[in-house]
Amino acid sequence: MPVITVATVKPLPEHRDEVKAAFIAAIEQVHGEDGCELYALNQSDDRLVMIEKWASPAAVQTHSGSPALQKLFAALKGKLDGPLDVVNLEPVPAGDPAKGQL
Amino acid sequence: MPVITVATVKPLPEHRDEVKAAFIAAIEQVHGEDGCELYALNQSDDRLVMIEKWASPAAVQTHSGSPALQKLFAALKGKLDGPLDVVNLEPVPAGDPAKGQL
Repeated sequence: MPVITVATVKPLPEHRDEVKAAFIAAIEQVHGEDGCELYALNQSDDRLVMIEKWASPAAVQTHSGSPALQKLFAALKGKLDGPLDVVNLEPVPAGDPAKGQL
Repeated sequence: MPVITVATVKPLPEHRDEVKAAFIAAIEQVHGEDGCELYALNQSDDRLVMIEKWASPAAVQTHSGSPALQKLFAALKGKLDGPLDVVNLEPVPAGDPAKGQL
């Protein structure tokens, strides 16, 4: 069963560019991790949201300790307004298969 | 510019099945709306999360008043633990194009 993850950070305004750059630096490495099917960054005025799809819970588990993620966490230290919010979800496919699941 | 939307509801536990069914009923109609590229339901123990991609801000605007959404909102009334949380985002494509954007 795949896992859909939505990870949200709210950067301190004065560190927004650095936080965004740290995520972008992590993306290329994470795309090469086993079981990574989607790891896509999105932004609004006050937050960055990574939307992720992993092939299995085991892949998420391995990712959570990966070198890319450890480096990212180190780069975020002191630059966020509050903790990283991570939500792990199970897909509920419905409707048009091309639009009804990630 | 496409819009990525993450919409989260926390159903009251006793209404969870009805809330999920209302979302599933809406999905097929919403997939037929202009500019809908993704409208995918996901779940965890305490919430339902719709992850959406729209072709443009205008498509999101039209969707927000669509018959399917009005019917969905009516069906949710009194069944949620708190308000619907909707976050509209701009994609930040990076890395592998197949994995770095919705």
